[in-house]
Amino acid sequence: MWREYVREVTPYTPGEQPGGADVIKLNTNENPYPPCSGVARALKEFDCEALRRYPDPAVSKLRGAIASYHNLDMGNVFVGVGSDDVIAMCYMTFFNSDKPILFPDITYSFYDVWADEFKVPFTVKALNDDFRINKSDYYVENGGVIIPNPNAPTGIAEPVEFFEDILNHNRDSIVIIDEAYVDFGASSCIELLSKYDNLIVVRTFSKSRSMAGSRIGYALASEEIITALHNVKYSYNSYTMDSVTIKLGVEAIKDEKYFRDNLDKVICTRNWTRDRLNELGFQVFDSSANFLFVKPSGISAKALFEKLKERNIYVRYFNKPRIDNYLRISIGTDSEMQALIEAIAEII
Amino acid sequence: MWREYVREVTPYTPGEQPGGADVIKLNTNENPYPPCSGVARALKEFDCEALRRYPDPAVSKLRGAIASYHNLDMGNVFVGVGSDDVIAMCYMTFFNSDKPILFPDITYSFYDVWADEFKVPFTVKALNDDFRINKSDYYVENGGVIIPNPNAPTGIAEPVEFFEDILNHNRDSIVIIDEAYVDFGASSCIELLSKYDNLIVVRTFSKSRSMAGSRIGYALASEEIITALHNVKYSYNSYTMDSVTIKLGVEAIKDEKYFRDNLDKVICTRNWTRDRLNELGFQVFDSSANFLFVKPSGISAKALFEKLKERNIYVRYFNKPRIDNYLRISIGTDSEMQALIEAIAEII
Repeated sequence: MWREYVREVTPYTPGEQPGGADVIKLNTNENPYPPCSGVARALKEFDCEALRRYPDPAVSKLRGAIASYHNLDMGNVFVGVGSDDVIAMCYMTFFNSDKPILFPDITYSFYDVWADEFKVPFTVKALNDDFRINKSDYYVENGGVIIPNPNAPTGIAEPVEFFEDILNHNRDSIVIIDEAYVDFGASSCIELLSKYDNLIVVRTFSKSRSMAGSRIGYALASEEIITALHNVKYSYNSYTMDSVTIKLGVEAIKDEKYFRDNLDKVICTRNWTRDRLNELGFQVFDSSANFLFVKPSGISAKALFEKLKERNIYVRYFNKPRIDNYLRISIGTDSEMQALIEAIAEII
Repeated sequence: MWREYVREVTPYTPGEQPGGADVIKLNTNENPYPPCSGVARALKEFDCEALRRYPDPAVSKLRGAIASYHNLDMGNVFVGVGSDDVIAMCYMTFFNSDKPILFPDITYSFYDVWADEFKVPFTVKALNDDFRINKSDYYVENGGVIIPNPNAPTGIAEPVEFFEDILNHNRDSIVIIDEAYVDFGASSCIELLSKYDNLIVVRTFSKSRSMAGSRIGYALASEEIITALHNVKYSYNSYTMDSVTIKLGVEAIKDEKYFRDNLDKVICTRNWTRDRLNELGFQVFDSSANFLFVKPSGISAKALFEKLKERNIYVRYFNKPRIDNYLRISIGTDSEMQALIEAIAEII
């Protein structure tokens, strides 16, 4: 009889994680380059005996390092086990009205999943035909707003003024700007934090810091918002970030030169790939992320996805309305992207 | 106006985490000895470049290692970020009826916190005057049962037959036995898993494996239960256990000799401490955990707690009904416990 009360969810299947040395994996927006050398050093130097102790539940060292990096106070920083954890905590903490939260119809695939999970009503707002966000869609009464900048999987960014306008129309709601990919070429809304106490900017170490394997995400916001997040988080699970990860996270943001060089390389490879795909007749959206969103030419997205997979090249195909003839291609190394372009040229 | 919809919680204050080399920290049940040497080696040998990739969302290597250790299949194992995460997932997945879940009045302090968090009704069942569980309290209709064995903070264990009897009266409910401290001298209910498809046994690496800093907990249960847990977990946050922790966890259960020796040392020190406290006139409960639950003699628990703290010795005092004249003392090294006994002898 206990089966009657098992929570019903739509089982989510995580993206393919193919193994093997000859696989070219361009399907989950991972960074093609390793974390900075300080991370490797911190791993080697970590005092294993310290693991017998609980980690600092306040994660003060990492929050302090992130705060300094952004010229904020530690009281403006909340960290979580990846930005998925951070955003889920934001839903749980702030999206408790019976008005619907708003987000784009084409966007990060977890926004509606969390809404279902936490029983938060939501309304999706359709992107334009050119996959841009209509800011006036977000002028209506709502229980909260969440928008990624740049948006995913389109990669299209909007300027800070665009989000400031949305904030000005939403002084009564929490507005979350999900900046998972912002380092690859978009402008951050962090500068708006001092003016809007209802703004939450979410970031991750998974993409631009090459640390998807470490699960570090964070939110930047007013002290009042961060305190509310901590109250909910501590009441649920006080110790979520392990001691090794805290130390690696602190090291990961110390090496600004490596970080900038890494971003430059990815952006340069992205632009090269964009040009080649344009030459092959693909429609390629202007990307501010570490991926390209493209409409293939002379072949359906699904067929190209499958033919690439046969050659051990994995890109992302979405079997969803409006975008089922597009592919999302993560930016790998130069040689990986050359192999991709050659494979596509042969296939089409 | 967004403030109206902020989730209201009772802010939880994590236990004191005093720093400093001269502190004797006996307040959070941490293991006084380091993890096995394989964990340190795995840290040093970890390939940092792998961090650019997402971890395996199925955590197959660690689940496989835990399954082998317990002679079960990987499909019988769910892992989480500490046993707090595992139990919270169990609440979310299985405690969805409107009947109250049952647990002891004196027990792990998070059970009622999660019930509030997930809006699960609950009824607490009072322990006997000698702080034992009345099994017949759990014969009534309920929405689920959760009991630690040994119980905390009493340290008192019950035999497997005791829990089998509770299971036989609860074929319609999920019954969770929280075995966080079981390795220190209690009998495990794992042997009952093959007979009861509604049983969940929860374990942690934090105590007996000396890895509180790594945040590894797990549940053992029927494949049906584990699948339900995974469905909920994946719909919430697919990637929660980081790549380093997965590797360290695999190493931590390989060294059975170190594990047994570590347990023997803690148990031996516990028994020595129990005898000394008895000699000082304290009431000491029979403990199967890595802590002692004691009623001081000649001084109130609160006064002793404070006087020990002045000497940089931290034990745990609970300002709660029924147990506000007791202290929970974690088992440290021999020299730490000698220092404790000397300090207590001087104080009283």
